[in-house]
Amino acid sequence: MPTVHITRKVHFNAAHRLHNPEKSDEWNGDTFGKCNSPNWHGHNYNLEVTIAGEPDPDTGYVMDLGKLKDLLWETIIEPCDHSNLNLDVPFLKGIIPSAENLVVAFWKQLEPRIEGARLECIRLYETERNFVDYRGE
Amino acid sequence: MPTVHITRKVHFNAAHRLHNPEKSDEWNGDTFGKCNSPNWHGHNYNLEVTIAGEPDPDTGYVMDLGKLKDLLWETIIEPCDHSNLNLDVPFLKGIIPSAENLVVAFWKQLEPRIEGARLECIRLYETERNFVDYRGE
Amino acid sequence: MPTVHITRKVHFNAAHRLHNPEKSDEWNGDTFGKCNSPNWHGHNYNLEVTIAGEPDPDTGYVMDLGKLKDLLWETIIEPCDHSNLNLDVPFLKGIIPSAENLVVAFWKQLEPRIEGARLECIRLYETERNFVDYRGE
Amino acid sequence: MPTVHITRKVHFNAAHRLHNPEKSDEWNGDTFGKCNSPNWHGHNYNLEVTIAGEPDPDTGYVMDLGKLKDLLWETIIEPCDHSNLNLDVPFLKGIIPSAENLVVAFWKQLEPRIEGARLECIRLYETERNFVDYRGE
Amino acid sequence: MPTVHITRKVHFNAAHRLHNPEKSDEWNGDTFGKCNSPNWHGHNYNLEVTIAGEPDPDTGYVMDLGKLKDLLWETIIEPCDHSNLNLDVPFLKGIIPSAENLVVAFWKQLEPRIEGARLECIRLYETERNFVDYRGE
Amino acid sequence: MPTVHITRKVHFNAAHRLHNPEKSDEWNGDTFGKCNSPNWHGHNYNLEVTIAGEPDPDTGYVMDLGKLKDLLWETIIEPCDHSNLNLDVPFLKGIIPSAENLVVAFWKQLEPRIEGARLECIRLYETERNFVDYRGE
Repeated sequence: MPTVHITRKVHFNAAHRLHNPEKSDEWNGDTFGKCNSPNWHGHNYNLEVTIAGEPDPDTGYVMDLGKLKDLLWETIIEPCDHSNLNLDVPFLKGIIPSAENLVVAFWKQLEPRIEGARLECIRLYETERNFVDYRGE
Repeated sequence: MPTVHITRKVHFNAAHRLHNPEKSDEWNGDTFGKCNSPNWHGHNYNLEVTIAGEPDPDTGYVMDLGKLKDLLWETIIEPCDHSNLNLDVPFLKGIIPSAENLVVAFWKQLEPRIEGARLECIRLYETERNFVDYRGE
Repeated sequence: MPTVHITRKVHFNAAHRLHNPEKSDEWNGDTFGKCNSPNWHGHNYNLEVTIAGEPDPDTGYVMDLGKLKDLLWETIIEPCDHSNLNLDVPFLKGIIPSAENLVVAFWKQLEPRIEGARLECIRLYETERNFVDYRGE
Repeated sequence: MPTVHITRKVHFNAAHRLHNPEKSDEWNGDTFGKCNSPNWHGHNYNLEVTIAGEPDPDTGYVMDLGKLKDLLWETIIEPCDHSNLNLDVPFLKGIIPSAENLVVAFWKQLEPRIEGARLECIRLYETERNFVDYRGE
Repeated sequence: MPTVHITRKVHFNAAHRLHNPEKSDEWNGDTFGKCNSPNWHGHNYNLEVTIAGEPDPDTGYVMDLGKLKDLLWETIIEPCDHSNLNLDVPFLKGIIPSAENLVVAFWKQLEPRIEGARLECIRLYETERNFVDYRGE
Repeated sequence: MPTVHITRKVHFNAAHRLHNPEKSDEWNGDTFGKCNSPNWHGHNYNLEVTIAGEPDPDTGYVMDLGKLKDLLWETIIEPCDHSNLNLDVPFLKGIIPSAENLVVAFWKQLEPRIEGARLECIRLYETERNFVDYRGE
């Protein structure tokens, strides 16, 4: 049976700030520049989630995209959309919300809940010009 | 001489919150929903600025796009990028930062500084699915 | 008070066929080519709806985008999405479903239901390379 | 010699319906929802085909993109464009036309005809928000 | 009868250089900067052509898009694609190939050949961030 | 520690011509067609550079994107932007500037200068429809 990868794109809007509370304000300003701006800034985040598996002969589906969409809503979009990623999201507590750290945290939320197929990649666009990928490695 | 419209796209990232301080929290929650979220959310804003004029016979330019880019930087991008639109931008003080109000405020900053041509339209994308246009009317 | 235009993008998927039942098969084949293919073809239609009005001083909104989205759902998306535009949509009966005719038909559905603002333009993308605009003229 | 991957994007428009004729109408409705709509729906499909190989020292080409475009036209675009994927395409007979099944079927058509290089991946966008990849595995 | 606007997107690739031969090299360098680079540079130009008219009751078409595509090919794409806009295109001789001047020159080629409808606008994207519009005014 | 891939998009505009000086004009015309046009043509090139590494616990960064942007500017954008790729770029001397050859040449410039992380992939879009990837293999 062939293995096919399916990808679903979703999006959310959020505020954040790059700041390491264990370091001085001077270090934070030098390291993060404008991204350390004290009153937050924000992004339209676009997320692409890729699942690998064999198409079910009865349906032709690797996974029902409606179910995947629901799962993404519960695990990522509902907690993060229109939120402050530093303050409001329980599973991001204590994490500097860089795109790199976000995508690893999203993987930990989502991976245990994928059944009958394998989470392959999560791609997060912070802007149209910057994105990160995590493959569970 | 022909009149040509030229458009330059720029972008900035910012946090904001829709909140009318003259109304109750209940009214704000009912009216703005998730956009009233207390700890802010944010967007990658895309801005398209359109200038109308006659191409200069010596250059073929309605306006030097480098000069337009500098002007957009000074009047809009520098004050708004990586900022909180409710707290950090002097020319937005007292304004509910809806896309509609932002685009009118940007017009007031930019229009007096365009010389030798006419500001025709400012379009602001709050997300890929929502945008507003203001034409000075 | 300034007049601002707000635009909301939505989408639907549908099958259709260009065919004039009052003409011969030969005329239809010569006129519409592949678009007359007997077993239908289809598109991912993207729709941009533009509303003009003055921002409400209490909200900064020309119109609540959530209400506009609901209205677009009721009048256009729910009847057309995953449908056959020649067979399934009551308000398209007897209309050759060219992009031009669709956009005029959508206007007639939507325009009477916009309150407190003015429907300004409906743009329909049939593909990424072809779109039509109707302004009620 | 370095191995480079080259990708060409093409597109086609088609109608389809997700329906398993060996199952009851009730099963089909429950499983496929709107995608089981009896009178078909359709999509603007975008296809990205990736070929791997070493650039020819005389041309700098892994493969002449004009030849790849012609091959894609013959094997995929000509049979599928403006067609009904359930009824009109000989090589899709008996296949439920999910994106997953389509991309595997396209691979079988295309792979034997690539000479002097290796078919690496076929990506099919069913909508802007959903796509599938097949790598021959 | 309603008036609908239809738009077709096409593209071409070309080299050009901004240089006014009646001025000194110093003036050209100061005025055009990198765009005056002596050995040319180039762009993927995207062109959007908008036609206004009433849909024909027999076809639902303002204008057959296939005929419009052919007309665009003959008047603009064939002469400009893979060309040097300063040296190779007869109808651009003596014109500084700024986006503003190009779009006016394209209008003069195309407008007299549109029959049964009205050329409304030509939009030319020089890059994804810069475009110009001409409306025959 | 997890390995995350980060990607930064940049762009440049350039003229080029596909021509092998060791072959006859007839061979070049037959092989490269319009891409052999003697007075050059050009493109808006889009470049996506992917770096793999472990996020630094202090910053959440695999690599500071500002530093990556500066490095891309020095090694690729500054020499190539608004240039003629056949004539003006020292590190492309003697290379037929196909997208395949360009991406391998860019790798050689960039790879030795990445510190503390690994260059994973360079993707070059010659047009919106054609792109190439090189992974150092």
